[in-house]
Amino acid sequence: MDKHAAGIDIGGTTTKMGIVSGRGRVIAKSSIITKDFPTPASFRKAVRNALLEMTSSSKTELSGIGIGAPNANIHSGCIEFAPNLPWKGIIDLREGLDDIAEVRVTNDANAAALGEKLFGAAGKFSDFIVITLGTGVGGGIFCDSRLLYGKFGLAGEVGHIIAVPEGRPCNCGRKGCVEKYCSAGGIVQTAVEVAAKYRNRTLLEKYNLNNLTTKIIYEAALEGDEAAVETFDITARHLASFLNDLVNIFSAEAIIISGGVAKAGDMLFKPLEKYFRSELIEFYRNKNIKLLKSALPEQDAAIIGAASLVL
Amino acid sequence: MDKHAAGIDIGGTTTKMGIVSGRGRVIAKSSIITKDFPTPASFRKAVRNALLEMTSSSKTELSGIGIGAPNANIHSGCIEFAPNLPWKGIIDLREGLDDIAEVRVTNDANAAALGEKLFGAAGKFSDFIVITLGTGVGGGIFCDSRLLYGKFGLAGEVGHIIAVPEGRPCNCGRKGCVEKYCSAGGIVQTAVEVAAKYRNRTLLEKYNLNNLTTKIIYEAALEGDEAAVETFDITARHLASFLNDLVNIFSAEAIIISGGVAKAGDMLFKPLEKYFRSELIEFYRNKNIKLLKSALPEQDAAIIGAASLVL
Repeated sequence: MDKHAAGIDIGGTTTKMGIVSGRGRVIAKSSIITKDFPTPASFRKAVRNALLEMTSSSKTELSGIGIGAPNANIHSGCIEFAPNLPWKGIIDLREGLDDIAEVRVTNDANAAALGEKLFGAAGKFSDFIVITLGTGVGGGIFCDSRLLYGKFGLAGEVGHIIAVPEGRPCNCGRKGCVEKYCSAGGIVQTAVEVAAKYRNRTLLEKYNLNNLTTKIIYEAALEGDEAAVETFDITARHLASFLNDLVNIFSAEAIIISGGVAKAGDMLFKPLEKYFRSELIEFYRNKNIKLLKSALPEQDAAIIGAASLVL
Repeated sequence: MDKHAAGIDIGGTTTKMGIVSGRGRVIAKSSIITKDFPTPASFRKAVRNALLEMTSSSKTELSGIGIGAPNANIHSGCIEFAPNLPWKGIIDLREGLDDIAEVRVTNDANAAALGEKLFGAAGKFSDFIVITLGTGVGGGIFCDSRLLYGKFGLAGEVGHIIAVPEGRPCNCGRKGCVEKYCSAGGIVQTAVEVAAKYRNRTLLEKYNLNNLTTKIIYEAALEGDEAAVETFDITARHLASFLNDLVNIFSAEAIIISGGVAKAGDMLFKPLEKYFRSELIEFYRNKNIKLLKSALPEQDAAIIGAASLVL
């Protein structure tokens, strides 16, 4: 039997699991609905069963199990505080799995950064930043060739740094977090605000915060809808400033954007590239700082990233 | 002869040099006026002579020479771009000194962080951030027990991250950098703006940007001058938000404030402590994140920090 690793990505909605080869290929996949499990114990049992079934059907032996989850701490192996998950308190993610193989745990964005380093767009970089733009904004950071964890395991969690002082209130308690402007929900909120300025001249005005999506905004922008294009332009400006902050803080050579929002493609990346370059300070202007899209297949990126913890 | 290290701190105005013992004690000191030397060659010669004189008079042998300088790169040993120094182009700091002892170079704030780790307030911390508040705002960051350098050697240079979008124009080309609000000059600018609101009710109104200093503002605040107190309050709010961003980014357990501005003591630290705690996100609220002043003697901190590179 070949040696492979399991990758588990625990999300607020779905938990995705897969068996990943040493070359980063996903050879078996499975998923469960996270919120169907009212207790950590019932959730663990379902994960365990799915893993055993996949290893058996794919005739593989696991060399390790990597888990990516919101706010998961590599030092403790636990989720300490995750408002988007159905369970309260500290949850040990190794329990009920560590008799199968060694379990390593980190937060989802750190897992994404490891995945990019091993199998994605970051192969040759020693100093890079992976930013995940999706339901939230997350980050995983390699500095001096090492993934940063920090004392409490959450280094790189950049979603709650301030983009707009005294701006949109965030669940975290701060105001104006970058997550409130550059996540899917943040972009939708910007679009609703912008659409209000384009009465009778935008496809977006028939939507509200509850039924508008980044996909609808993207399709409107493709059709030349000015409010939709302006929404991406505003988002790109926030992102460009944020990414420049990060380049300065980490003296990084590359930034890699992953997550669902990256699907907006040129509609986001063209203005982002322009604003990002124009804001680079002189020291970095001749350093050819790279701004890249994730090179992992979007639907498997989280599984590959989690498996990278033990590959 | 005892083995000791030389510490050299190259600043825009003065270059300070010292011989530092293995326990962090400064046993000989010297300084030259940086801008008295029109060329790097003449500067190097003066530094070399001062070093040789100190080692001879203190009867020590140097085990190494550490140099802290603005924008100095540990990888190349060079200053690549330093607008505040009198010389243009790339300056190799090891030249003319490396026959005396091994020379190591980094930027001044990184040197400060090393000094705090070896001999100052950071002894027991694996994850901490040293912020220097003076002519500029600098930073040195330990994450996972290692000082961060980054691809281009300037990791931790946090002075040019944005505190106020589209705010005060900065020499770096960006607008609203934290340095424009929390450096000595930034505080003076805030005071001038605040004083304009307190016509005939503040000691500060007789000053302008050119003759007001943080010392004058501090003394006015001690006398209860409302505009002066408000100036420190505004500065503390900017700093608190900035420091919270950094705690989130690095999952750090402590922040250490050094530099001339820290002399404002409680006038700055009391509101800073209040705003800093109130902005911590829930995950960090029970983590007892420390907010400390530098424990190095202010006049020798830069020399001790630079020497720490080779101690």
